[in-house]
Amino acid sequence: MQFTAQQISALLNGTVEGDAMVAVDKLAKIEEAGPGALSFLANPKYEQFLYTTNASAVIVNNDLVLTAPVKATLIRVENAYSAFSILLEQYNTLKLNKSGIEEPSFIHPTATIGKNVYIGAFAYIGPNAKVGDNTKIYPNTYLADNVTVGSNTTLFSGVKVYFDCVIGNNAIIHSGAVIGSDGFGFAPNPDGSYKKISQIGNVIVEDDVEIGANTAIDRATMGSTVIGKGVKIDNLVQIAHNAEVGKNTVIAGQAGIAGSTKVGERAVIGGQVGLAGHLTIADGSQFSAQTGVNHSVKEADKQWGGSPHLPLKDYLRAHVNIRRLPDLEKRITELEKIIAQLHSNNQ
Amino acid sequence: MQFTAQQISALLNGTVEGDAMVAVDKLAKIEEAGPGALSFLANPKYEQFLYTTNASAVIVNNDLVLTAPVKATLIRVENAYSAFSILLEQYNTLKLNKSGIEEPSFIHPTATIGKNVYIGAFAYIGPNAKVGDNTKIYPNTYLADNVTVGSNTTLFSGVKVYFDCVIGNNAIIHSGAVIGSDGFGFAPNPDGSYKKISQIGNVIVEDDVEIGANTAIDRATMGSTVIGKGVKIDNLVQIAHNAEVGKNTVIAGQAGIAGSTKVGERAVIGGQVGLAGHLTIADGSQFSAQTGVNHSVKEADKQWGGSPHLPLKDYLRAHVNIRRLPDLEKRITELEKIIAQLHSNNQ
Amino acid sequence: MQFTAQQISALLNGTVEGDAMVAVDKLAKIEEAGPGALSFLANPKYEQFLYTTNASAVIVNNDLVLTAPVKATLIRVENAYSAFSILLEQYNTLKLNKSGIEEPSFIHPTATIGKNVYIGAFAYIGPNAKVGDNTKIYPNTYLADNVTVGSNTTLFSGVKVYFDCVIGNNAIIHSGAVIGSDGFGFAPNPDGSYKKISQIGNVIVEDDVEIGANTAIDRATMGSTVIGKGVKIDNLVQIAHNAEVGKNTVIAGQAGIAGSTKVGERAVIGGQVGLAGHLTIADGSQFSAQTGVNHSVKEADKQWGGSPHLPLKDYLRAHVNIRRLPDLEKRITELEKIIAQLHSNNQ
Repeated sequence: MQFTAQQISALLNGTVEGDAMVAVDKLAKIEEAGPGALSFLANPKYEQFLYTTNASAVIVNNDLVLTAPVKATLIRVENAYSAFSILLEQYNTLKLNKSGIEEPSFIHPTATIGKNVYIGAFAYIGPNAKVGDNTKIYPNTYLADNVTVGSNTTLFSGVKVYFDCVIGNNAIIHSGAVIGSDGFGFAPNPDGSYKKISQIGNVIVEDDVEIGANTAIDRATMGSTVIGKGVKIDNLVQIAHNAEVGKNTVIAGQAGIAGSTKVGERAVIGGQVGLAGHLTIADGSQFSAQTGVNHSVKEADKQWGGSPHLPLKDYLRAHVNIRRLPDLEKRITELEKIIAQLHSNNQ
Repeated sequence: MQFTAQQISALLNGTVEGDAMVAVDKLAKIEEAGPGALSFLANPKYEQFLYTTNASAVIVNNDLVLTAPVKATLIRVENAYSAFSILLEQYNTLKLNKSGIEEPSFIHPTATIGKNVYIGAFAYIGPNAKVGDNTKIYPNTYLADNVTVGSNTTLFSGVKVYFDCVIGNNAIIHSGAVIGSDGFGFAPNPDGSYKKISQIGNVIVEDDVEIGANTAIDRATMGSTVIGKGVKIDNLVQIAHNAEVGKNTVIAGQAGIAGSTKVGERAVIGGQVGLAGHLTIADGSQFSAQTGVNHSVKEADKQWGGSPHLPLKDYLRAHVNIRRLPDLEKRITELEKIIAQLHSNNQ
Repeated sequence: MQFTAQQISALLNGTVEGDAMVAVDKLAKIEEAGPGALSFLANPKYEQFLYTTNASAVIVNNDLVLTAPVKATLIRVENAYSAFSILLEQYNTLKLNKSGIEEPSFIHPTATIGKNVYIGAFAYIGPNAKVGDNTKIYPNTYLADNVTVGSNTTLFSGVKVYFDCVIGNNAIIHSGAVIGSDGFGFAPNPDGSYKKISQIGNVIVEDDVEIGANTAIDRATMGSTVIGKGVKIDNLVQIAHNAEVGKNTVIAGQAGIAGSTKVGERAVIGGQVGLAGHLTIADGSQFSAQTGVNHSVKEADKQWGGSPHLPLKDYLRAHVNIRRLPDLEKRITELEKIIAQLHSNNQ
């Protein structure tokens, strides 16, 4: 898809400086852009690149004052950053603009399929499953019996959703994510073996949630594992049975939440963080990467680090001291020697 | 599926108190149950909920003495907890009661398929693969050449089993799990690049094993990576080539076991624990979450924590002290000042 | 496939001692080998097993001097280890010698397919995708629009590659790996919710790369996430948007690299290591398992451990001291007592 600077400018209500007919067919950062690319300049720190860039066109703020000649065509707009964001979004929408039902796919006769959906080849829509309007189910994706997927939602290739689970509207679930696998529940037998506890609950993923690649969210033993509205979950995250994650909480890659833990709203959980089971985590809690959380957090909006977790500042200060431990011990030994001597002198 | 309290009671050899014809169609916890739900009361701590629950029917112990009026129909049995467990199991069995071969699926002419199996659409059964009686292979699952899967085993949607691997009876493998990918083995070349070492062994998963979603178990270089009878593995666990996991060991989410490590029987490995390669771990060892194990554990039935691992008690005590390090240092500095003064006084 | 010792010997330019007609049909370690197995002896430490092994044939060095009678047929070669490696490789090549296009598969009419490829059933080759010569796309694998896969590359079952991504030649990607999922990028809204930042870049996987099972590599926001030539990545690894991994770097299982971090060449990243975002890591850096890296590493070829990371030696020494903290505190308390007494004596 090729556009002229003129066409882009018209779309953004901008004005063109330079060759209005120059054609662009890709978007790029100003410091990396080559011929045919459209870029933008919003942060003054990057202004130097404007005078050297090979981009064919650059979106800039109306009030930018040039301090040197520019090779690229300029498109002046009120706010270059948000104008470019709009283009990014439209580019992405075009790229992901799939619709129709590809063959072979498996749609059970009892399933309900909304309008204007995309169902890729080798996708499986099980008995009584529901797929809302404008929703995209990519190839090799599996919806088991009674699964409900809302409207305007995208399930990328290879997502697996177990029976009875519910996915909301405007959600995005990336490839390989598994929603509704059995919770990890076993009761010990007298002979040391374990008996499986049946997991008959489900997972509810509310509206506007994004779930990363190969993340696993287990179904509840009874009731629901709940991912609240607007939650954003990165790749390879583990969320165990009966966990609940509050609205707008963000969970980075490879973090894990053990069974029945309730995380509040607006929390920020760093990469590789682990939360033990049956905890309650206050709203707005922030855990730095690799934190291990073994007891509940009651005060909201605090920062934590270490394993087991401490207030982040305490943790960082203690960590500095850990490195100085050999030195501390030398000082103690030295004191002991002096004192032994003083002591003998004094006796 | 709707049942009356009378029907449930007959199934459990119970007696009904209240409306025997009330209908239930779901199972729920007593504190969350609504109309149409069947619940249970086993733990006396929850008795308060019996008098306020909206459940239509509640299973209780024969010897329960009511202290207030109850709205729900009661089903009295010898042991409410185990009676309810039986119902959970039966519910789950009904939910997962799939059979037959869906089309399109791929079953190689040289594959052997047992009786009463389920093979979902887009499942792939490769050359010389064997699937035992009553086994379920869900949609989009892949069994490569010469794979053997026992009887009464369930492979959920999207499981991938590489060639020559063996899965036992009564096993459950959840979506996205990969069994038999190449071990991570490379030999350095003089130019800094690596040469792949061929991985020609396999994975043996013994009977009664459960493996969680998106877990990866690598094939042995030669010989077998072995998951012993009754082992339970959670989601997103990594088990490297030639590892062996002893009978009835439990491994929580996101834990990792490096190459050639032998874990004993009845061990309990917490979430995000890492075991280095070529270790031997004694029977009944317990590792708390995020433990890093860098040397073998010879004593059985001990608890460990920290990274590198320490006896759990030592680790927890040391961790408390870490937080007090800045204070310890102040005390040392104070002592040094006093001593310097004493010293000068004494000279 | 059965071969005689004579046939194997001819293949390896060896000489046979014993029954040249004995048949072998598998490869095994000398200490585990049974009848019908071919084994090898390279390391003198294992020589004892030569006299007790049940292997039918054993490859040994020309210069090996027997010190006891041997039951197995011997095949003498110049270098037993490399001769056996050649057999391993050939065995593996035979095992994975798939070709042809299985049905049903989905190949978009605009896709370009090279010569001598394997495309398994339920594989999906999207619009404008390119698959190079001798490349194998296993069943249930997904290549989205405009994906390019080079020659002699293997994508095992269930790999998912998002649109516009590029995979090089001689690469191996294991089951469940996801290449090109959206980077984890969101901008906060005033009401506490997040707005998705479109991720329009791609992933470039260069030649000779191996990527483990269920690993996830996110596409760049703009530009490319780059996995350099010869990089080896284990299972369940997370690589975030705009990360770059230099040539011949090795990344062990469950490690994670956050957004925009640049890792140099020849680095060795241990299991469960986490690298924070926007860092630069010098060539040849080595991180022991579970290290947490929160600032850039500028010196090349150093070893690191701990979280946050310290020079490995410092970390290990400090860790020893952590365990002795309660003892250190006792010594300080003891000193304080003595000094208090000395002090009062002195006044």
